[in-house]
Amino acid sequence: MALDLYIGNKNYSTWSLRPWMVLKVFNIEFNEHWIQFDDFSADGAFKQYARAIHPTATVPILRHHDLVISDSLAICEYLAELFPDLALWPAQRDQRARARSICAEMHSRFTQLRQLCPMNIEADLSHIGQQLWKSHPALREDVKRIQDIWAERPHADGFLCGAAWSIADAFYAPVIMRFLSYDLPISSKNQAYVDRILNLEATQIWMNEARQEHCFVAIDEPYRTQAEP
Amino acid sequence: MALDLYIGNKNYSTWSLRPWMVLKVFNIEFNEHWIQFDDFSADGAFKQYARAIHPTATVPILRHHDLVISDSLAICEYLAELFPDLALWPAQRDQRARARSICAEMHSRFTQLRQLCPMNIEADLSHIGQQLWKSHPALREDVKRIQDIWAERPHADGFLCGAAWSIADAFYAPVIMRFLSYDLPISSKNQAYVDRILNLEATQIWMNEARQEHCFVAIDEPYRTQAEP
Repeated sequence: MALDLYIGNKNYSTWSLRPWMVLKVFNIEFNEHWIQFDDFSADGAFKQYARAIHPTATVPILRHHDLVISDSLAICEYLAELFPDLALWPAQRDQRARARSICAEMHSRFTQLRQLCPMNIEADLSHIGQQLWKSHPALREDVKRIQDIWAERPHADGFLCGAAWSIADAFYAPVIMRFLSYDLPISSKNQAYVDRILNLEATQIWMNEARQEHCFVAIDEPYRTQAEP
Repeated sequence: MALDLYIGNKNYSTWSLRPWMVLKVFNIEFNEHWIQFDDFSADGAFKQYARAIHPTATVPILRHHDLVISDSLAICEYLAELFPDLALWPAQRDQRARARSICAEMHSRFTQLRQLCPMNIEADLSHIGQQLWKSHPALREDVKRIQDIWAERPHADGFLCGAAWSIADAFYAPVIMRFLSYDLPISSKNQAYVDRILNLEATQIWMNEARQEHCFVAIDEPYRTQAEP
């Protein structure tokens, strides 16, 4: 097997989830390498391990023979080129452009949601979510924009950019995990889409493995002092 | 002409510069639309104008017939698809993967450089740059990483990802503007690359037009109270 994907903790690592999910949903064979999160100090185990693979010292990283690619979006673009017959991006050009646009939006924006509601699959943070929702208008704006993106999907019973699941759906999957943990509102129009993502086998595997990690990483836990009992 | 690019102030808008430069360097015909920066309040002129084109209400935006694309990276990917013979991305697959990786890195990282040293082409902020350089280790780290990326170019007398200029070079062009305004250090190995970018006709046009705008936008001016006399 020639593809090696390096990921972080499944409970916390939103960026790792994206290319992992693309590989799983499209049944692309790969070796999975788990780098345990720590406090991300420059000389800590995580940074040392990751830096030995790529100078950014972040996950995910994809290795394909001698080529080492950092960043979730760059990895997904590379996979789309490597498997052109699988249509990792939507086959229709307009929807492909829209897919890249909303992936880029996720890549660099939604800072309030990302900062205030870090992904934490095993945790029930619904009480925190209620407080955050009341006190942070910018969080509500982020959620509204995401709901709008989901609602704009071309087919109500399809995925974000067409009838077929694509990289765009992978980019918004971690948001669904946040919506669940923090109990953020999901419109009735979007609930069917959320359920469709949650019912995917790849999603189920990731979430189950996240719950089985039992690693409490303090730096990713602004709201808890220990894991669920 | 079917391509319309909406951009912000040339003196300040790094994200606008990127796709604009791609269009110029590759001699792709387009209509340029300038949306003047203001204080970016939700009901201000900039947001109202931009929101009427795309819900993100940010620049750049590309319109191609009925298709409206937001985000610099998504726009560049779309242009690369639209003009496959021009090789907007490097022709060689490994370098193309590297190009996307470093573009993604610019897209979501280098936060210290981006926050502390906003692009300001007409300004001489070298005295500010010296203070920032001394007091912000994270800024020095950002600059070091960028210098490493530049130094890794495959040919010393070429561009970032090969002999030909590509989208990757567009993504790092605004950094060069910052290095100049804030007088940040450029290694001797990278000076030739920086000079090559500065000597491009597209760069010259952008910089000249930036200097001729004479618009002082307070929100983008943490260090000045008025424009240069």
